[in-house]
Amino acid sequence: MSYKRGYVQVYTGNGKGKTTCSLGLALRATGDGNKVHIIQFMKGRRYSEIDAIEFVPGMTIVQCGRDEFVSKEDPEQIDIDLAMDGFEKAKEAVLSGDHDMVILDEINVAMDYNLIDVDEVIDLISRKPSTLELVLTGRYAPQRIIDIADLVTEMKEIKHFYRKGVEARKGIEF
Amino acid sequence: MSYKRGYVQVYTGNGKGKTTCSLGLALRATGDGNKVHIIQFMKGRRYSEIDAIEFVPGMTIVQCGRDEFVSKEDPEQIDIDLAMDGFEKAKEAVLSGDHDMVILDEINVAMDYNLIDVDEVIDLISRKPSTLELVLTGRYAPQRIIDIADLVTEMKEIKHFYRKGVEARKGIEF
Repeated sequence: MSYKRGYVQVYTGNGKGKTTCSLGLALRATGDGNKVHIIQFMKGRRYSEIDAIEFVPGMTIVQCGRDEFVSKEDPEQIDIDLAMDGFEKAKEAVLSGDHDMVILDEINVAMDYNLIDVDEVIDLISRKPSTLELVLTGRYAPQRIIDIADLVTEMKEIKHFYRKGVEARKGIEF
Repeated sequence: MSYKRGYVQVYTGNGKGKTTCSLGLALRATGDGNKVHIIQFMKGRRYSEIDAIEFVPGMTIVQCGRDEFVSKEDPEQIDIDLAMDGFEKAKEAVLSGDHDMVILDEINVAMDYNLIDVDEVIDLISRKPSTLELVLTGRYAPQRIIDIADLVTEMKEIKHFYRKGVEARKGIEF
């Protein structure tokens, strides 16, 4: 099945739960028989979600990044190339009509880092099939993306145990 | 496997993504080999996530509510009974040691509606196994719950397509 009308959802803000929420959206969508494709920008680590997704029929994921710190002021060429490659994959996924939901995880950060051009993302959004649900995650969502989105949730950090010195834990945070 | 140290996470606020985020947490956790049990309060409808969860090894879900509007001022006895029953199941799940993560979905609302006593929830949290990750979702999280939680994210609605007259859609919102 596919959606009668697909929308553009944005999850942004400094709080925990943006990628996690998109995984939940993906899980729920597949439960209803939809096909979901996730493209993770600026990530190259084998996160636990990748193992989990293998169990779920209709859900696919690809990572377009590496597990290294990216400097906002001075990104390395490989990070620019990986992001550009990711955006090519995103265009293909969005325009192919093969998926009911496409999740562009951390693309907001890639735009904020100038690895991906905001104008190109806006253009892609304008050309998406009307039945496709498109989800963009990552802090620092550009205002122009917020302006054209249908749903925007800001994840606001009220309290975080990292502040108490707890490290990110496998199977929870990644 | 289980967590070396489990924490208490709260997802609250008026924005979209609280239950969805807990589903994502559950998916990621099972990807890492953990066992996750979800108890949904004040919900009785067969949501798409229930179909999806059946695919995922290590994830179980139970609903303790019905698909009817609950009046905050004047809840019906059946809603009180269902919430109490849910809380008994929550106690059992939390204290059994059978799960690595327990998600009490919408329990914040059940507390806000006085269907479940905040003191009892605080007591349960204090008795949880140290390795158990406990997740509480729902708007209106009581301040005393926020005070004892390790991580609190507020989902803040910036923009929502319902405001444009879009109905909740199966496979997306539920």
